[in-house]
Amino acid sequence: MINTTRKLRLGAISSILTQNPNVLYPLSYFSAMFGSSKSTLSEDMTILKESFETFGIGSLEVVMGAAGGVRYVPSVNKDVRREAMDEILEQLMSPSRILPGGYVYTADILLTPKYTDKMAQIIWGWFRDTNPDFIITVEAKGIALAASVARLFGKPLVVARRESKLTEGSVVTINYLSGSANRMQKMSISKRAIREGQKTLIIDDFIAGGGTIRAIYDIMKEFSVDVVGCAAAISTKEPIKKRVNDYKSIFILEEANSDENNISFRLSPDIDL
Amino acid sequence: MINTTRKLRLGAISSILTQNPNVLYPLSYFSAMFGSSKSTLSEDMTILKESFETFGIGSLEVVMGAAGGVRYVPSVNKDVRREAMDEILEQLMSPSRILPGGYVYTADILLTPKYTDKMAQIIWGWFRDTNPDFIITVEAKGIALAASVARLFGKPLVVARRESKLTEGSVVTINYLSGSANRMQKMSISKRAIREGQKTLIIDDFIAGGGTIRAIYDIMKEFSVDVVGCAAAISTKEPIKKRVNDYKSIFILEEANSDENNISFRLSPDIDL
Repeated sequence: MINTTRKLRLGAISSILTQNPNVLYPLSYFSAMFGSSKSTLSEDMTILKESFETFGIGSLEVVMGAAGGVRYVPSVNKDVRREAMDEILEQLMSPSRILPGGYVYTADILLTPKYTDKMAQIIWGWFRDTNPDFIITVEAKGIALAASVARLFGKPLVVARRESKLTEGSVVTINYLSGSANRMQKMSISKRAIREGQKTLIIDDFIAGGGTIRAIYDIMKEFSVDVVGCAAAISTKEPIKKRVNDYKSIFILEEANSDENNISFRLSPDIDL
Repeated sequence: MINTTRKLRLGAISSILTQNPNVLYPLSYFSAMFGSSKSTLSEDMTILKESFETFGIGSLEVVMGAAGGVRYVPSVNKDVRREAMDEILEQLMSPSRILPGGYVYTADILLTPKYTDKMAQIIWGWFRDTNPDFIITVEAKGIALAASVARLFGKPLVVARRESKLTEGSVVTINYLSGSANRMQKMSISKRAIREGQKTLIIDDFIAGGGTIRAIYDIMKEFSVDVVGCAAAISTKEPIKKRVNDYKSIFILEEANSDENNISFRLSPDIDL
Protein backbone atom coordinates (compact mmCIF):
# COMPACT_ATOMS: atom_id res chain seq x y z
CA MET A 1 0.00 0.00 0.00
CA ILE A 2 1.16 3.49 -0.80
CA ASN A 3 0.29 6.31 1.55
CA THR A 4 -0.05 10.04 1.10
CA THR A 5 3.40 10.62 2.35
CA ARG A 6 4.93 8.39 -0.29
CA LYS A 7 3.14 10.06 -3.15
CA LEU A 8 4.48 13.39 -1.91
CA ARG A 9 7.98 12.00 -1.44
CA LEU A 10 8.24 10.43 -4.90
CA GLY A 11 7.94 13.72 -6.79
CA ALA A 12 10.31 15.51 -4.45
CA ILE A 13 13.02 12.84 -4.50
CA SER A 14 12.77 12.56 -8.27
CA SER A 15 13.19 16.32 -8.69
CA ILE A 16 16.17 16.57 -6.33
CA LEU A 17 18.02 13.62 -7.86
CA THR A 18 17.27 14.77 -11.42
CA GLN A 19 18.65 18.22 -10.70
CA ASN A 20 21.92 16.69 -9.57
CA PRO A 21 22.83 13.89 -11.98
CA ASN A 22 25.55 11.51 -10.82
CA VAL A 23 25.67 13.08 -7.38
CA LEU A 24 25.46 10.51 -4.59
CA TYR A 25 22.83 11.35 -1.96
CA PRO A 26 23.02 9.35 1.26
CA LEU A 27 19.62 8.01 2.31
CA SER A 28 20.13 9.95 5.53
CA TYR A 29 19.74 13.15 3.47
CA PHE A 30 16.21 12.13 2.59
CA SER A 31 15.36 10.69 5.98
CA ALA A 32 16.24 14.05 7.54
CA MET A 33 14.07 15.78 4.93
CA PHE A 34 11.01 13.53 5.24
CA GLY A 35 11.36 11.91 8.64
CA SER A 36 11.09 8.52 6.96
CA SER A 37 12.98 5.37 7.82
CA LYS A 38 15.69 4.10 5.51
CA SER A 39 13.71 0.98 4.70
CA THR A 40 10.76 3.11 3.61
CA LEU A 41 13.08 5.24 1.51
CA SER A 42 14.64 2.14 -0.04
CA GLU A 43 11.17 1.19 -1.26
CA ASP A 44 10.76 4.71 -2.69
CA MET A 45 14.01 4.29 -4.59
CA THR A 46 12.89 0.95 -6.00
CA ILE A 47 9.72 2.58 -7.32
CA LEU A 48 11.63 5.53 -8.80
CA LYS A 49 14.16 3.22 -10.43
CA GLU A 50 11.35 1.28 -12.07
CA SER A 51 9.69 4.52 -13.12
CA PHE A 52 12.84 6.00 -14.67
CA GLU A 53 13.71 2.78 -16.46
CA THR A 54 10.17 2.18 -17.72
CA PHE A 55 9.97 5.62 -19.30
CA GLY A 56 13.58 5.83 -20.50
CA ILE A 57 14.52 8.73 -18.22
CA GLY A 58 17.57 7.08 -16.75
CA SER A 59 18.23 4.91 -13.78
CA LEU A 60 18.92 5.04 -10.07
CA GLU A 61 22.11 3.52 -8.82
CA VAL A 62 22.08 2.39 -5.23
CA VAL A 63 25.45 2.25 -3.49
CA MET A 64 25.43 0.10 -0.36
CA GLY A 65 27.34 0.61 2.86
CA ALA A 66 28.18 3.43 5.22
CA ALA A 67 29.38 5.77 2.46
CA GLY A 68 26.49 4.65 0.29
CA GLY A 69 23.43 6.33 -1.08
CA VAL A 70 21.56 6.82 -4.29
CA ARG A 71 22.39 8.67 -7.48
CA TYR A 72 20.47 9.52 -10.62
CA VAL A 73 22.16 8.18 -13.74
CA PRO A 74 20.71 10.08 -16.69
CA SER A 75 19.68 8.72 -20.01
CA VAL A 76 17.07 9.86 -22.42
CA ASN A 77 14.12 8.23 -24.01
CA LYS A 78 14.84 7.34 -27.65
CA ASP A 79 11.74 9.15 -28.92
CA VAL A 80 12.64 12.28 -27.00
CA ARG A 81 16.21 12.09 -28.28
CA ARG A 82 15.13 11.64 -31.88
CA GLU A 83 12.64 14.48 -31.63
CA ALA A 84 15.23 16.82 -30.12
CA MET A 85 17.90 15.95 -32.70
CA ASP A 86 15.40 16.36 -35.55
CA GLU A 87 14.44 19.77 -34.22
CA ILE A 88 18.06 20.93 -34.03
CA LEU A 89 18.83 19.46 -37.45
CA GLU A 90 15.90 21.29 -39.00
CA GLN A 91 17.12 24.54 -37.49
CA LEU A 92 20.69 23.94 -38.68
CA MET A 93 19.49 23.33 -42.24
CA SER A 94 18.16 26.87 -42.63
CA PRO A 95 19.99 28.66 -45.51
CA SER A 96 19.75 31.89 -43.51
CA ARG A 97 22.60 30.50 -41.39
CA ILE A 98 25.10 30.62 -44.23
CA LEU A 99 27.66 33.36 -43.81
CA PRO A 100 30.09 34.68 -46.41
CA GLY A 101 33.00 32.29 -46.96
CA GLY A 102 30.97 29.21 -46.15
CA TYR A 103 30.84 29.87 -42.41
CA VAL A 104 27.69 28.90 -40.55
CA TYR A 105 25.96 30.81 -37.76
CA THR A 106 25.28 28.36 -34.92
CA ALA A 107 25.65 30.48 -31.77
CA ASP A 108 21.90 30.55 -31.11
CA ILE A 109 21.68 26.75 -30.96
CA LEU A 110 24.92 26.33 -29.03
CA LEU A 111 23.78 28.79 -26.38
CA THR A 112 20.24 27.56 -25.79
CA PRO A 113 20.18 25.28 -22.74
CA LYS A 114 17.30 23.12 -23.99
CA TYR A 115 19.47 22.23 -27.00
CA THR A 116 22.81 21.95 -25.23
CA ASP A 117 21.22 19.71 -22.60
CA LYS A 118 19.89 17.34 -25.26
CA MET A 119 23.23 17.27 -27.10
CA ALA A 120 24.97 16.67 -23.77
CA GLN A 121 22.76 13.62 -23.20
CA ILE A 122 24.00 12.13 -26.47
CA ILE A 123 27.61 12.79 -25.43
CA TRP A 124 26.94 11.36 -21.96
CA GLY A 125 25.63 8.21 -23.65
CA TRP A 126 28.86 7.87 -25.63
CA PHE A 127 31.28 8.45 -22.76
CA ARG A 128 29.39 7.51 -19.59
CA ASP A 129 31.77 4.68 -18.78
CA THR A 130 34.98 6.71 -19.16
CA ASN A 131 34.75 8.38 -15.77
CA PRO A 132 36.55 11.70 -16.43
CA ASP A 133 37.62 13.87 -13.49
CA PHE A 134 36.80 17.04 -15.39
CA ILE A 135 35.47 18.24 -18.74
CA ILE A 136 37.65 20.55 -20.82
CA THR A 137 36.79 23.01 -23.58
CA VAL A 138 38.26 26.13 -25.21
CA GLU A 139 36.52 29.47 -24.90
CA ALA A 140 33.97 30.54 -25.93
CA LYS A 141 31.23 29.03 -28.09
CA GLY A 142 31.50 25.51 -26.68
CA ILE A 143 31.32 26.52 -23.01
CA ALA A 144 27.55 26.19 -22.64
CA LEU A 145 27.57 22.70 -24.18
CA ALA A 146 30.58 21.68 -22.12
CA ALA A 147 28.83 22.94 -18.96
CA SER A 148 25.77 20.83 -19.83
CA VAL A 149 28.05 17.81 -20.25
CA ALA A 150 29.86 18.56 -16.97
CA ARG A 151 26.49 18.71 -15.18
CA LEU A 152 25.55 15.22 -16.43
CA PHE A 153 28.89 13.81 -15.30
CA GLY A 154 28.63 15.68 -11.97
CA LYS A 155 32.14 17.05 -12.60
CA PRO A 156 33.78 20.48 -12.93
CA LEU A 157 34.58 22.16 -16.21
CA VAL A 158 37.96 23.59 -17.18
CA VAL A 159 38.11 26.28 -19.86
CA ALA A 160 41.28 26.89 -21.85
CA ARG A 161 41.65 30.61 -22.55
CA ARG A 162 42.78 32.17 -25.82
CA GLU A 163 44.64 34.78 -23.80
CA SER A 164 45.82 34.16 -20.29
CA LYS A 165 44.32 36.50 -17.72
CA LEU A 166 45.67 37.71 -14.40
CA THR A 167 42.77 35.97 -12.69
CA GLU A 168 43.97 32.58 -13.91
CA GLY A 169 47.14 32.65 -11.83
CA SER A 170 50.12 30.84 -13.37
CA VAL A 171 49.25 29.06 -16.58
CA VAL A 172 50.61 26.57 -19.07
CA THR A 173 50.45 27.96 -22.60
CA ILE A 174 50.67 26.16 -25.91
CA ASN A 175 51.11 27.61 -29.41
CA TYR A 176 49.46 25.71 -32.23
CA LEU A 177 48.27 25.91 -35.82
CA SER A 178 44.52 26.34 -36.10
CA GLY A 179 43.12 23.89 -38.63
CA SER A 180 41.64 25.65 -41.61
CA ALA A 181 43.40 28.99 -41.61
CA ASN A 182 46.82 27.57 -40.68
CA ARG A 183 47.15 30.51 -38.36
CA MET A 184 49.16 30.39 -35.17
CA GLN A 185 46.97 30.50 -32.10
CA LYS A 186 47.60 29.96 -28.44
CA MET A 187 45.70 28.58 -25.52
CA SER A 188 46.42 28.76 -21.81
CA ILE A 189 45.20 26.71 -18.90
CA SER A 190 45.51 27.65 -15.25
CA LYS A 191 47.83 25.34 -13.35
CA ARG A 192 45.39 25.44 -10.45
CA ALA A 193 42.62 23.92 -12.54
CA ILE A 194 44.14 20.49 -13.04
CA ARG A 195 46.03 17.85 -11.08
CA GLU A 196 48.50 15.42 -12.58
CA GLY A 197 47.12 11.96 -13.28
CA GLN A 198 43.53 13.08 -13.78
CA LYS A 199 41.33 12.02 -16.69
CA THR A 200 39.45 14.39 -18.98
CA LEU A 201 36.82 14.46 -21.70
CA ILE A 202 37.27 17.13 -24.41
CA ILE A 203 34.17 19.00 -25.63
CA ASP A 204 34.12 21.55 -28.43
CA ASP A 205 31.47 23.24 -30.52
CA PHE A 206 33.01 22.68 -33.92
CA ILE A 207 35.76 20.53 -35.42
CA ALA A 208 37.00 21.53 -38.88
CA GLY A 209 40.73 20.91 -39.30
CA GLY A 210 41.11 19.51 -35.79
CA GLY A 211 44.01 21.79 -34.85
CA THR A 212 42.38 23.08 -31.68
CA ILE A 213 41.51 19.59 -30.44
CA ARG A 214 45.04 18.42 -31.28
CA ALA A 215 46.34 21.30 -29.16
CA ILE A 216 44.16 20.28 -26.21
CA TYR A 217 45.52 16.73 -26.47
CA ASP A 218 49.05 18.16 -26.49
CA ILE A 219 48.53 20.51 -23.56
CA MET A 220 46.91 17.68 -21.57
CA LYS A 221 50.15 15.75 -22.02
CA GLU A 222 51.98 18.67 -20.38
CA PHE A 223 49.66 18.26 -17.40
CA SER A 224 50.05 14.43 -17.44
CA VAL A 225 46.29 14.16 -17.91
CA ASP A 226 44.76 11.23 -19.78
CA VAL A 227 42.19 12.14 -22.47
CA VAL A 228 39.37 9.58 -22.30
CA GLY A 229 37.39 10.95 -25.23
CA CYS A 230 36.52 13.88 -27.43
CA ALA A 231 33.14 15.07 -28.69
CA ALA A 232 31.85 18.07 -30.59
CA ALA A 233 28.44 19.41 -31.50
CA ILE A 234 29.43 19.72 -35.16
CA SER A 235 32.26 18.45 -37.32
CA THR A 236 32.86 19.16 -40.99
CA LYS A 237 32.89 16.45 -43.63
CA GLU A 238 35.90 18.14 -45.28
CA PRO A 239 38.80 17.90 -44.74
CA ILE A 240 38.34 14.16 -44.23
CA LYS A 241 41.86 13.98 -42.83
CA LYS A 242 41.92 16.09 -39.69
CA ARG A 243 44.67 16.74 -37.18
CA VAL A 244 42.81 14.47 -34.79
CA ASN A 245 41.12 11.16 -35.55
CA ASP A 246 39.59 9.99 -32.37
CA TYR A 247 36.46 12.10 -31.88
CA LYS A 248 32.70 11.86 -32.16
CA SER A 249 30.40 14.63 -33.29
CA ILE A 250 26.64 14.90 -33.14
CA PHE A 251 26.11 16.70 -36.45
CA ILE A 252 28.20 16.61 -39.61
CA LEU A 253 28.35 19.68 -41.80
CA GLU A 254 28.39 18.37 -45.34
CA GLU A 255 28.09 21.60 -47.27
CA ALA A 256 27.72 25.33 -46.71
CA ASN A 257 27.93 27.25 -49.95
CA SER A 258 27.23 30.95 -49.77
CA ASP A 259 27.18 31.40 -53.56
CA GLU A 260 24.53 28.78 -54.17
CA ASN A 261 22.83 29.26 -50.80
CA ASN A 262 23.16 25.55 -50.07
CA ILE A 263 23.52 24.13 -46.60
CA SER A 264 23.50 20.52 -45.58
CA PHE A 265 23.95 18.77 -42.26
CA ARG A 266 23.41 15.18 -41.23
CA LEU A 267 23.20 13.37 -37.94
CA SER A 268 26.23 11.36 -36.92
CA PRO A 269 25.94 7.63 -37.59
CA ASP A 270 27.24 7.18 -34.02
CA ILE A 271 23.87 8.24 -32.64
CA ASP A 272 21.61 5.37 -31.74
CA LEU A 273 18.13 6.57 -32.81
CA MET B 1 -6.66 5.48 -3.97
CA ILE B 2 -3.37 5.57 -5.75
CA ASN B 3 -2.49 2.73 -8.12
CA THR B 4 0.78 1.32 -9.36
CA THR B 5 0.60 3.34 -12.50
CA ARG B 6 0.40 6.61 -10.59
CA LYS B 7 3.40 5.87 -8.42
CA LEU B 8 5.40 5.18 -11.58
CA ARG B 9 4.06 8.31 -13.30
CA LEU B 10 4.86 10.69 -10.43
CA GLY B 11 8.62 10.14 -10.53
CA ALA B 12 8.74 10.31 -14.31
CA ILE B 13 6.68 13.51 -14.63
CA SER B 14 8.68 15.15 -11.85
CA SER B 15 11.96 14.30 -13.58
CA ILE B 16 10.86 15.54 -17.00
CA LEU B 17 9.42 18.82 -15.72
CA THR B 18 12.42 19.43 -13.46
CA GLN B 19 14.83 18.94 -16.34
CA ASN B 20 13.01 21.62 -18.32
CA PRO B 21 12.19 24.49 -15.96
CA ASN B 22 9.67 27.03 -17.22
CA VAL B 23 8.90 24.96 -20.29
CA LEU B 24 5.17 24.44 -20.82
CA TYR B 25 4.23 20.79 -21.38
CA PRO B 26 0.72 20.17 -22.70
CA LEU B 27 -1.07 17.42 -20.76
CA SER B 28 -1.40 15.62 -24.10
CA TYR B 29 2.38 15.09 -24.01
CA PHE B 30 2.01 13.02 -20.86
CA SER B 31 -1.19 11.27 -21.93
CA ALA B 32 0.63 10.05 -25.04
CA MET B 33 3.51 8.89 -22.83
CA PHE B 34 1.44 7.09 -20.19
CA GLY B 35 -1.87 6.38 -21.90
CA SER B 36 -3.62 8.18 -19.03
CA SER B 37 -6.62 10.45 -19.26
CA LYS B 38 -6.20 14.18 -18.75
CA SER B 39 -8.29 14.11 -15.59
CA THR B 40 -6.01 11.44 -14.12
CA LEU B 41 -2.98 13.53 -15.10
CA SER B 42 -4.54 16.63 -13.55
CA GLU B 43 -4.67 14.75 -10.28
CA ASP B 44 -1.00 13.79 -10.71
CA MET B 45 -0.14 17.45 -11.18
CA THR B 46 -2.02 18.42 -8.03
CA ILE B 47 -0.01 15.86 -6.05
CA LEU B 48 3.28 17.03 -7.56
CA LYS B 49 2.44 20.67 -6.92
CA GLU B 50 1.78 19.87 -3.27
CA SER B 51 4.98 17.83 -3.11
CA PHE B 52 7.15 20.55 -4.64
CA GLU B 53 5.64 23.26 -2.45
CA THR B 54 5.81 21.20 0.74
CA PHE B 55 9.50 20.52 0.31
CA GLY B 56 10.46 23.91 -1.12
CA ILE B 57 11.48 22.56 -4.52
CA GLY B 58 9.37 24.96 -6.52
CA SER B 59 5.89 24.89 -7.87
CA LEU B 60 3.82 23.69 -10.79
CA GLU B 61 1.94 26.24 -12.79
CA VAL B 62 -1.10 24.95 -14.61
CA VAL B 63 -2.16 26.93 -17.68
CA MET B 64 -5.74 26.22 -18.72
CA GLY B 65 -7.19 26.07 -22.21
CA ALA B 66 -6.28 24.62 -25.59
CA ALA B 67 -2.74 26.02 -25.55
CA GLY B 68 -2.42 25.13 -21.89
CA GLY B 69 -0.34 22.69 -19.98
CA VAL B 70 1.91 22.51 -16.98
CA ARG B 71 5.31 23.96 -16.22
CA TYR B 72 7.80 23.57 -13.41
CA VAL B 73 8.61 26.85 -11.74
CA PRO B 74 11.83 26.36 -9.82
CA SER B 75 12.69 27.56 -6.39
CA VAL B 76 14.94 26.16 -3.80
CA ASN B 77 14.48 25.10 -0.25
CA LYS B 78 15.93 27.69 2.16
CA ASP B 79 18.05 25.11 3.98
CA VAL B 80 19.48 23.81 0.73
CA ARG B 81 20.18 27.35 -0.42
CA ARG B 82 21.90 28.31 2.82
CA GLU B 83 23.99 25.15 2.80
CA ALA B 84 25.05 25.68 -0.82
CA MET B 85 25.94 29.35 -0.27
CA ASP B 86 27.87 28.50 2.90
CA GLU B 87 29.82 25.86 1.00
CA ILE B 88 30.74 28.28 -1.80
CA LEU B 89 31.59 31.02 0.69
CA GLU B 90 33.90 28.70 2.60
CA GLN B 91 35.68 27.80 -0.62
CA LEU B 92 36.00 31.45 -1.65
CA MET B 93 37.55 32.35 1.70
CA SER B 94 40.62 30.17 1.11
CA PRO B 95 43.80 32.32 1.13
CA SER B 96 45.24 30.02 -1.56
CA ARG B 97 42.95 31.86 -4.00
CA ILE B 98 44.77 35.14 -3.64
CA LEU B 99 46.82 36.02 -6.70
CA PRO B 100 49.49 38.71 -7.01
CA GLY B 101 47.97 42.19 -7.27
CA GLY B 102 44.93 41.29 -5.18
CA TYR B 103 43.26 39.22 -7.90
CA VAL B 104 41.31 36.16 -6.83
CA TYR B 105 41.15 32.77 -8.55
CA THR B 106 37.47 31.80 -8.90
CA ALA B 107 37.34 29.88 -12.19
CA ASP B 108 36.89 26.52 -10.46
CA ILE B 109 33.73 27.65 -8.66
CA LEU B 110 32.35 29.54 -11.65
CA LEU B 111 32.75 26.48 -13.89
CA THR B 112 31.31 23.81 -11.61
CA PRO B 113 27.68 23.18 -12.54
CA LYS B 114 26.59 22.23 -9.03
CA TYR B 115 27.69 25.70 -7.90
CA THR B 116 26.51 27.68 -10.91
CA ASP B 117 23.11 25.99 -10.68
CA LYS B 118 22.72 27.01 -7.04
CA MET B 119 23.85 30.57 -7.75
CA ALA B 120 21.46 30.66 -10.71
CA GLN B 121 18.60 29.73 -8.38
CA ILE B 122 19.36 32.79 -6.25
CA ILE B 123 19.37 34.98 -9.37
CA TRP B 124 16.16 33.37 -10.60
CA GLY B 125 14.57 34.24 -7.25
CA TRP B 126 15.55 37.90 -7.67
CA PHE B 127 14.39 38.31 -11.27
CA ARG B 128 11.74 35.65 -11.84
CA ASP B 129 9.03 38.23 -12.47
CA THR B 130 10.97 40.27 -15.04
CA ASN B 131 10.32 37.90 -17.94
CA PRO B 132 13.45 38.45 -20.09
CA ASP B 133 13.49 37.16 -23.69
CA PHE B 134 17.16 36.22 -23.39
CA ILE B 135 20.05 36.25 -20.94
CA ILE B 136 23.20 38.14 -21.91
CA THR B 137 26.80 37.83 -20.72
CA VAL B 138 30.31 38.61 -21.94
CA GLU B 139 32.79 35.84 -22.67
CA ALA B 140 34.19 33.86 -21.00
CA LYS B 141 34.16 33.23 -17.24
CA GLY B 142 30.49 34.07 -16.73
CA ILE B 143 29.15 31.85 -19.51
CA ALA B 144 28.56 28.76 -17.38
CA LEU B 145 26.65 30.76 -14.75
CA ALA B 146 24.68 32.62 -17.44
CA ALA B 147 23.79 29.29 -19.07
CA SER B 148 22.52 27.99 -15.72
CA VAL B 149 20.38 31.12 -15.38
CA ALA B 150 19.11 30.79 -18.97
CA ARG B 151 18.08 27.19 -18.24
CA LEU B 152 15.97 28.28 -15.25
CA PHE B 153 14.25 30.96 -17.31
CA GLY B 154 13.82 28.54 -20.23
CA LYS B 155 15.40 31.15 -22.52
CA PRO B 156 18.40 31.39 -24.85
CA LEU B 157 21.71 32.95 -23.91
CA VAL B 158 23.54 35.59 -25.92
CA VAL B 159 27.29 35.97 -25.47
CA ALA B 160 29.04 39.23 -26.30
CA ARG B 161 32.48 38.48 -27.76
CA ARG B 162 35.68 40.35 -27.00
CA GLU B 163 36.67 39.95 -30.62
CA SER B 164 34.14 39.52 -33.36
CA LYS B 165 34.47 36.25 -35.26
CA LEU B 166 33.54 35.37 -38.82
CA THR B 167 31.04 32.88 -37.44
CA GLU B 168 29.05 35.64 -35.77
CA GLY B 169 27.97 37.24 -39.05
CA SER B 170 27.51 41.00 -38.93
CA VAL B 171 27.94 42.43 -35.47
CA VAL B 172 27.43 45.59 -33.48
CA THR B 173 30.62 46.58 -31.68
CA ILE B 174 31.13 48.95 -28.79
CA ASN B 175 34.37 50.37 -27.40
CA TYR B 176 34.45 51.06 -23.69
CA LEU B 177 36.68 51.67 -20.70
CA SER B 178 37.08 48.65 -18.50
CA GLY B 179 36.56 49.56 -14.86
CA SER B 180 39.67 49.12 -12.81
CA ALA B 181 42.44 49.31 -15.39
CA ASN B 182 40.84 52.16 -17.38
CA ARG B 183 41.89 50.27 -20.47
CA MET B 184 39.96 50.47 -23.72
CA GLN B 185 38.17 47.24 -24.52
CA LYS B 186 35.59 46.25 -27.06
CA MET B 187 32.71 43.87 -27.25
CA SER B 188 30.69 42.67 -30.22
CA ILE B 189 27.27 41.10 -30.48
CA SER B 190 25.90 39.32 -33.50
CA LYS B 191 22.98 41.16 -35.07
CA ARG B 192 21.29 37.82 -35.61
CA ALA B 193 21.20 37.07 -31.89
CA ILE B 194 18.77 39.80 -30.88
CA ARG B 195 15.54 41.38 -32.07
CA GLU B 196 14.54 44.97 -31.41
CA GLY B 197 12.10 45.42 -28.54
CA GLN B 198 13.21 42.35 -26.60
CA LYS B 199 14.01 42.30 -22.88
CA THR B 200 17.20 40.98 -21.36
CA LEU B 201 18.79 40.09 -18.04
CA ILE B 202 22.55 40.73 -17.74
CA ILE B 203 24.69 38.11 -15.97
CA ASP B 204 28.40 38.43 -15.25
CA ASP B 205 30.92 36.65 -13.11
CA PHE B 206 32.53 39.66 -11.49
CA ILE B 207 31.75 43.36 -11.12
CA ALA B 208 34.62 45.59 -10.03
CA GLY B 209 34.49 49.03 -11.65
CA GLY B 210 31.30 48.24 -13.54
CA GLY B 211 32.66 49.30 -16.94
CA THR B 212 31.79 46.05 -18.68
CA ILE B 213 28.22 46.04 -17.37
CA ARG B 214 27.87 49.71 -18.35
CA ALA B 215 28.97 48.74 -21.86
CA ILE B 216 26.36 45.98 -22.06
CA TYR B 217 23.68 48.49 -21.03
CA ASP B 218 24.94 50.82 -23.77
CA ILE B 219 25.09 48.20 -26.49
CA MET B 220 21.61 46.99 -25.56
CA LYS B 221 20.40 50.54 -26.27
CA GLU B 222 21.84 50.19 -29.77
CA PHE B 223 19.69 47.09 -30.19
CA SER B 224 16.63 48.81 -28.62
CA VAL B 225 16.59 46.10 -25.98
CA ASP B 226 15.28 46.78 -22.50
CA VAL B 227 17.52 45.62 -19.62
CA VAL B 228 15.27 44.22 -16.88
CA GLY B 229 18.05 43.46 -14.41
CA CYS B 230 21.68 42.71 -13.78
CA ALA B 231 23.30 40.12 -11.53
CA ALA B 232 26.81 38.86 -10.88
CA ALA B 233 28.32 36.06 -8.88
CA ILE B 234 30.75 38.43 -7.17
CA SER B 235 31.09 42.17 -6.83
CA THR B 236 33.82 44.09 -5.07
CA LYS B 237 33.19 46.33 -2.09
CA GLU B 238 35.61 48.90 -3.56
CA PRO B 239 35.19 51.08 -5.51
CA ILE B 240 31.86 51.85 -3.84
CA LYS B 241 30.99 54.12 -6.74
CA LYS B 242 30.86 51.92 -9.86
CA ARG B 243 29.98 52.77 -13.44
CA VAL B 244 26.68 50.98 -12.88
CA ASN B 245 24.39 51.18 -9.85
CA ASP B 246 21.54 48.89 -10.51
CA TYR B 247 22.88 45.38 -9.96
CA LYS B 248 22.74 42.56 -7.47
CA SER B 249 25.57 40.20 -6.65
CA ILE B 250 25.60 36.99 -4.65
CA PHE B 251 28.98 37.44 -2.98
CA ILE B 252 30.82 40.62 -2.07
CA LEU B 253 34.61 40.63 -2.12
CA GLU B 254 35.64 42.80 0.80
CA GLU B 255 39.39 42.26 0.77
CA ALA B 256 42.07 40.34 -1.10
CA ASN B 257 45.52 41.31 0.02
CA SER B 258 48.39 39.30 -1.40
CA ASP B 259 50.97 40.89 0.93
CA GLU B 260 49.13 39.99 4.11
CA ASN B 261 47.50 36.86 2.67
CA ASN B 262 44.07 38.14 3.71
CA ILE B 263 40.88 37.33 1.84
CA SER B 264 37.37 38.17 2.86
CA PHE B 265 34.02 37.64 1.19
CA ARG B 266 30.51 38.02 2.49
CA LEU B 267 27.09 37.00 1.27
CA SER B 268 24.96 39.71 -0.27
CA PRO B 269 22.33 41.15 2.08
CA ASP B 270 19.91 40.72 -0.85
CA ILE B 271 19.85 36.96 -0.27
CA ASP B 272 16.95 35.76 1.80
CA LEU B 273 18.43 33.02 3.98
